[in-house]
Amino acid sequence: MDWVKQQTAGKSSPRLVALDWGTSSQRAWLLGEGGRILAFRRREFGLLGATGDDPRSRTHGYEAAFDEACGDWLEADPDLPAIACGMVGSAQGWREAGYLTIPTDLAIGAADLTAVPHPRGVLHLVPGLRVAPAADGSVAGDVMRGEETQIIGALGLLPRTERPPTERPLTIVLPGTHSKWTRVENHKIVSFVTSLAGEMYGLMMQHGILGRTATVGVRNDAAFERGLATGTSVPSRGLLAELFGARVLVLDGLLDPASLPDYVSGVIIADEVRHLLPDYAAEGRILLCGNADLCRRYAKGLQVHGVATETVAEEAAAQGLWHVAVTAGLVRPTPHKNAEKETP
Amino acid sequence: MDWVKQQTAGKSSPRLVALDWGTSSQRAWLLGEGGRILAFRRREFGLLGATGDDPRSRTHGYEAAFDEACGDWLEADPDLPAIACGMVGSAQGWREAGYLTIPTDLAIGAADLTAVPHPRGVLHLVPGLRVAPAADGSVAGDVMRGEETQIIGALGLLPRTERPPTERPLTIVLPGTHSKWTRVENHKIVSFVTSLAGEMYGLMMQHGILGRTATVGVRNDAAFERGLATGTSVPSRGLLAELFGARVLVLDGLLDPASLPDYVSGVIIADEVRHLLPDYAAEGRILLCGNADLCRRYAKGLQVHGVATETVAEEAAAQGLWHVAVTAGLVRPTPHKNAEKETP
Repeated sequence: MDWVKQQTAGKSSPRLVALDWGTSSQRAWLLGEGGRILAFRRREFGLLGATGDDPRSRTHGYEAAFDEACGDWLEADPDLPAIACGMVGSAQGWREAGYLTIPTDLAIGAADLTAVPHPRGVLHLVPGLRVAPAADGSVAGDVMRGEETQIIGALGLLPRTERPPTERPLTIVLPGTHSKWTRVENHKIVSFVTSLAGEMYGLMMQHGILGRTATVGVRNDAAFERGLATGTSVPSRGLLAELFGARVLVLDGLLDPASLPDYVSGVIIADEVRHLLPDYAAEGRILLCGNADLCRRYAKGLQVHGVATETVAEEAAAQGLWHVAVTAGLVRPTPHKNAEKETP
Repeated sequence: MDWVKQQTAGKSSPRLVALDWGTSSQRAWLLGEGGRILAFRRREFGLLGATGDDPRSRTHGYEAAFDEACGDWLEADPDLPAIACGMVGSAQGWREAGYLTIPTDLAIGAADLTAVPHPRGVLHLVPGLRVAPAADGSVAGDVMRGEETQIIGALGLLPRTERPPTERPLTIVLPGTHSKWTRVENHKIVSFVTSLAGEMYGLMMQHGILGRTATVGVRNDAAFERGLATGTSVPSRGLLAELFGARVLVLDGLLDPASLPDYVSGVIIADEVRHLLPDYAAEGRILLCGNADLCRRYAKGLQVHGVATETVAEEAAAQGLWHVAVTAGLVRPTPHKNAEKETP
């Protein structure tokens, strides 16, 4: 088993099974009152591969994967509701959960969820978001699936005074294989765009000449910042020339091959930031949400342009799933004792 | 055997064995007087893989590969000189053949060649070219190996009136896995830069989400031109966003998945051209040298910017090798009959 497991001791009763089920990995949380994390599991298992044209074997495959992820939690507590976000709700996943088209508020309700029956009950899938392309080409289409739930969670994790709706628009950047830049205004997601920076970095390092040029090394922040500077330089020779330039630096003895990966990471992130920041600058303030190391890199990439950032943790997905489940009525928060006192 | 062979009937005597021996493929020509192609072979065999630390087994490996490529030609005509360009002269190849540092004229002489003895005689390796990086960072380093010989050949293939030195500077673009943009002034290569456009296209299509989005299709010039337009648009969302945008077009039913590869090719080439053209615009005229289909794509990408192009064929490498062999005195051209008449 390739599970990463984590158990929180405590007396809180389980209230919700929540999954962030992506293309290549799966995170499962057992949540107690208020979305408190009681247990957490992660494994490098995502969508099933091609399962041929037989929908029955496809369904059986996902049922088995779901049972492996959280069957014991549901066995112990059969009435627990279950909710999932991510690519499991795509056409390549268990069941297509559709998209909400932006602009949309973040109050995803019961009618927006897709119920997938399974032997232990029902799994509720969160819809993705899409940008509808304009017929005249002035707006490009885009899609996200899973990140909408992280955004809901991230906004809930902000200090209460910072939560939208506020007067100030907010940009949220979610770094990853396919990074998302998202604009929130008046409690609505009004635009977003995807960059495949993370995928490109992975392809270059796993299969390309840069991966063959690099040697195994330790993290080198100075090399990353040097890559950022290269990728930010004006005039720009462009990403395609600067990536080959990384190899030349090594050939010329000007860059340690063990530091090449960090340098390349800087070049790629700088290219993403320089192109997307103009449309997503938010009065000099951006919220980062995701893997801590990646968020640190993006924070530095944005700092180059004078943009301050705040970071919220990856657990945003768990909080988002809790929030959606409450909004949709899958769970009813137990009133706080204080609230009970206030009741006449 | 994975050879592609071609034999030209004729009475011309062999004068030179010439190889363009790259990382992943090898082309071998038997050349007659004036560089006339008598026979041609190509195979998808390039450099040896990692051969461990044993230099003797490495040498034996390259000797065997060389013998397989052209041993029969040398067996039939043991006094034929042999010359090679390309990555075979790199540190990962048979023998490191060094670099000439630009600015350099294109008259590569005997002293510039590296002689590698082998059981049938000597193979002469053509050096690569390098741009020395400026200490203040104002000039980025770069390298080429093999393309210098194609350039020499391409210039020889130009109509005589067009050959440098002329008053007009010339830009030569060699599209490929690692495209080269080269500036020639007064018979000297004065600058060049490399883009890994071709490698990135291959990685995306072989290993990335775009390859999984695409279906097998036929060539679609309109999709390529649409990709060019996207990659040229102002303001630019950048290569990383536009590549993901290609997938969204397919999801939205706005692009046939069978046409995705041509669209992506257009996006990538447009990004290369928009960044490198400013430094390499040559009074609105550029010479393209390489694979015919790739050259057509670059010609269209340059046309978007109002730049006219001429294309010379891939055989430029054979002509370049002949030219270097003559300059270095490995072969002496037989005087033309006309020339003999002029001799008093």
